[in-house]
Amino acid sequence: MKQRLTNILARLKHDKLDCLFLTHPANISYLTDSTSRDSYLIVSPHKNIYFTDSRYTEEAKATINHTIAIQTVKKPILEEIAAVCKDQRFKRIGFESKFCSFASYQKLSKLLGNRIHLIPTQDLVEDLRQIKDQTELSIIRQAVEITVQALNFIRPRLKPGKTELAIAAEIERFIRLRGARGPSFDIIVASGPNSSYPHHITSDRKLKATEAVVIDMGVDVKGYKSDLTRTFFLGKMTSLAQKVYATVRQAQEAAIKELKPNVFRSTVDRAARSVIANAGYAACFGHNLGHGVGLEIHEAPSISAKSDLTLKPGMVFTIEPGIYLPGKFGVRIEDMVLITENKEEILSGSLNK
Amino acid sequence: MKQRLTNILARLKHDKLDCLFLTHPANISYLTDSTSRDSYLIVSPHKNIYFTDSRYTEEAKATINHTIAIQTVKKPILEEIAAVCKDQRFKRIGFESKFCSFASYQKLSKLLGNRIHLIPTQDLVEDLRQIKDQTELSIIRQAVEITVQALNFIRPRLKPGKTELAIAAEIERFIRLRGARGPSFDIIVASGPNSSYPHHITSDRKLKATEAVVIDMGVDVKGYKSDLTRTFFLGKMTSLAQKVYATVRQAQEAAIKELKPNVFRSTVDRAARSVIANAGYAACFGHNLGHGVGLEIHEAPSISAKSDLTLKPGMVFTIEPGIYLPGKFGVRIEDMVLITENKEEILSGSLNK
Repeated sequence: MKQRLTNILARLKHDKLDCLFLTHPANISYLTDSTSRDSYLIVSPHKNIYFTDSRYTEEAKATINHTIAIQTVKKPILEEIAAVCKDQRFKRIGFESKFCSFASYQKLSKLLGNRIHLIPTQDLVEDLRQIKDQTELSIIRQAVEITVQALNFIRPRLKPGKTELAIAAEIERFIRLRGARGPSFDIIVASGPNSSYPHHITSDRKLKATEAVVIDMGVDVKGYKSDLTRTFFLGKMTSLAQKVYATVRQAQEAAIKELKPNVFRSTVDRAARSVIANAGYAACFGHNLGHGVGLEIHEAPSISAKSDLTLKPGMVFTIEPGIYLPGKFGVRIEDMVLITENKEEILSGSLNK
Repeated sequence: MKQRLTNILARLKHDKLDCLFLTHPANISYLTDSTSRDSYLIVSPHKNIYFTDSRYTEEAKATINHTIAIQTVKKPILEEIAAVCKDQRFKRIGFESKFCSFASYQKLSKLLGNRIHLIPTQDLVEDLRQIKDQTELSIIRQAVEITVQALNFIRPRLKPGKTELAIAAEIERFIRLRGARGPSFDIIVASGPNSSYPHHITSDRKLKATEAVVIDMGVDVKGYKSDLTRTFFLGKMTSLAQKVYATVRQAQEAAIKELKPNVFRSTVDRAARSVIANAGYAACFGHNLGHGVGLEIHEAPSISAKSDLTLKPGMVFTIEPGIYLPGKFGVRIEDMVLITENKEEILSGSLNK
């Protein structure tokens, strides 16, 4: 955690900022090594202050490192921030422009007056968060392991007549009893035609004897997320289902083959996308190939056809090609991978496909 | 839903806006009567457009009223918004300043150029959402009923040795099987000293034979939330626990007595707060007395000592006084109420205290 603060202070110095005012919960969690809710953080060379209200003060005192002062908010938060900035004589205040609303910006500007400048910043902490350290990797491995266990647990329990919601309930209970804080997002159980919606809302539809069931799920362990998808088939697979499933698997394998440090992310996306296009399903795979996973379920790096950035050791992300046939069914296979010093490690490699 | 669009168009006319660009999911859900995720909405007198990406297009077509056009986003969303605004010759575009980041504002401004004006708005839709219609109330009643059942279900199952997480898992499974989409927020099970944190993160702590257990939970039914809290005691209550519990109950009753249309919200907050202060616990009740509940778990109206606004028929909110003794235990009792034409209805009135 100390290293994380040191890294961000170096960025502030480089950008000639007196401090950084943080509003994004995941970034605050990262720098304080705690779970941020309704809190704010100021980081500066001389003083770090964590602002929260009385609901969280006791917890913050018990969990946050003593190099960060805890301030219980009593006035509207922006008034307290402005008071600290004036008190500390900050002149150039960096703020997170993607996570500060226009309304907050306007109000804080007014409170600070003309002689103190609010400087928009982007991705200062997100850039650091892309590269996971050993502590983070160890927690992410736990989250992936519970998810693998949950998918193995539920597979033999998918039976005609059960509702999607009942299946989600079984999974949810399972992961909690395995020690997860909870799901990392609403568990997706998409059966039959519902599986053709990439982000279906789990419903009371009952599974039928012969159809696809997509389960997309993850868990939260100490704030870190996991995200895996498997597509199961009840009954006999049609030849169309077999062809689509094989294509998605091949697309995923083609992408995984490309994974190593310094490869362009677009190269990885295209490797999968071209397999799907060659099979005649280009129009049925609309989303990106993958996304980073960590303190947020979707974070950098994005594995997209448009990205001109490369992969680096320590990055953790999903590889999740899919083919969606509207009104019929969909197939998605999603694994989580880590870029190592020379190649890749499939974190969810033990889970059958 | 048509009425909701009509109401917002009247506001736009009043504020001389050509259209409203919506970015807040709950507001988009409200105006489209669907569950918004990663979507955007433009409302104008001549055309309403719902923007989403390929993951959600099929679902949107199936669920959203045909008076709203569905546009599948292919370019960065702000580029598509700017193109529509230019195409429709909008000159004054309202945007949700509390839910539009400074970065998005800057980018959209640049795309629109000097001759099209972005006008910050606040609470246009939130104001409408405060007053629930019959359709909304009927869904909220379902959500409250499942929550009441869940708390009744779990009460006899609180046993020494069980972990907080195991209890949350039982509740989660129960509500899913009763037809809820899921919990409306992470279920709080706070045992022993953990109960002195108003928003404790449910942990693997095991319940002990003699202590307080606070359970704060709600469910999601069709996007609408519920939120109730009960404090249970395992074993014999100490005299301190009895005194604190009785005080919180009296505080809640005092607040509920004040509930009717046109009463100041601050009056309601103060009724509860003064009971707690008179018992000597003023410093142990730091949060507001209550908050609105609907498409968001926390929404307007806020029931706060500082509010100079009044209650109106159709408002739904919580009344949740609490006393928190750091390191010892906490007590919170939370019910959901509806303001009717003349008085109040306690939506969770059937649940024991």
